[in-house]
Amino acid sequence: MIEPKFKDVAEVLMGCVEGIKRTGIRLVAMRDLYAKALMPLAGNTNHFGVMYAGSLFTLGEISGGLIHVAAFDVYKWYPIVKEVKIKYLKPAATDVTMEVSLTPEEAAAIEKKAEEAGKADILMKLDLKDAQGVVVAEVSGVWQVRRIPEGMVLPSVA
Amino acid sequence: MIEPKFKDVAEVLMGCVEGIKRTGIRLVAMRDLYAKALMPLAGNTNHFGVMYAGSLFTLGEISGGLIHVAAFDVYKWYPIVKEVKIKYLKPAATDVTMEVSLTPEEAAAIEKKAEEAGKADILMKLDLKDAQGVVVAEVSGVWQVRRIPEGMVLPSVA
Repeated sequence: MIEPKFKDVAEVLMGCVEGIKRTGIRLVAMRDLYAKALMPLAGNTNHFGVMYAGSLFTLGEISGGLIHVAAFDVYKWYPIVKEVKIKYLKPAATDVTMEVSLTPEEAAAIEKKAEEAGKADILMKLDLKDAQGVVVAEVSGVWQVRRIPEGMVLPSVA
Repeated sequence: MIEPKFKDVAEVLMGCVEGIKRTGIRLVAMRDLYAKALMPLAGNTNHFGVMYAGSLFTLGEISGGLIHVAAFDVYKWYPIVKEVKIKYLKPAATDVTMEVSLTPEEAAAIEKKAEEAGKADILMKLDLKDAQGVVVAEVSGVWQVRRIPEGMVLPSVA
């Protein structure tokens, strides 16, 4: 379930980047400090009929944007991605889901650092799972929370 | 320039995975042991108007498939990707290109190992460059050459 307060910004987030939107990825749930997204197999198969490596990447990478919305003030901070590693463990022959969360303590520490330095890294590890709960890929990466400069207008909050 | 002998297989390769095709990525050049591809900025922008992280990933990841076609017998071996890391260095505000190559010695060593073991890893590092030649992202990863089992039919060579 997507909590009502996140509905508008989540819709913009999932729709404002064409390369994300055209995968058909769906936000399944969002509440404070938590989000879950689903990449459909349909439209995302590769030359073997299982999920294309790049679609799995998109599902993993979007975790940074989703947790940003679920954890931080999107009128004050914007997200970027610095690096992502994806390790493919098994072919994914179903839709694939990704869950991302921060503890209140983790979010507070990130925001405290961002308040001091104007930016703060978010290090995360995530499992991408098929419909049977099998981990098909492991994603790890560094995203970053940055202060929105005065006068900067992001499409995602415009 | 794409050498004539690669035209057909290259066209299939760039077209058989929907998630790759819909990015508008183009094969610019292919000859023995070398390929160059281009990801257009148009259709691949993010919420800041620069290239979306996932489109850069696709450009980097496809290096494995391209060098496979340019270096190995596609009727005998098929490619998979095991893991990829991408480090974003600068925003890409133009089309972005990727060049991938193997030396004859590297290709021979990979094929020798694959002949013995039925499969062999390909470790590669690649730079993604904007129109000014600036490296916007670094990609490193492990792909693999695998023997096509008897009776297995790949769309890419069917």
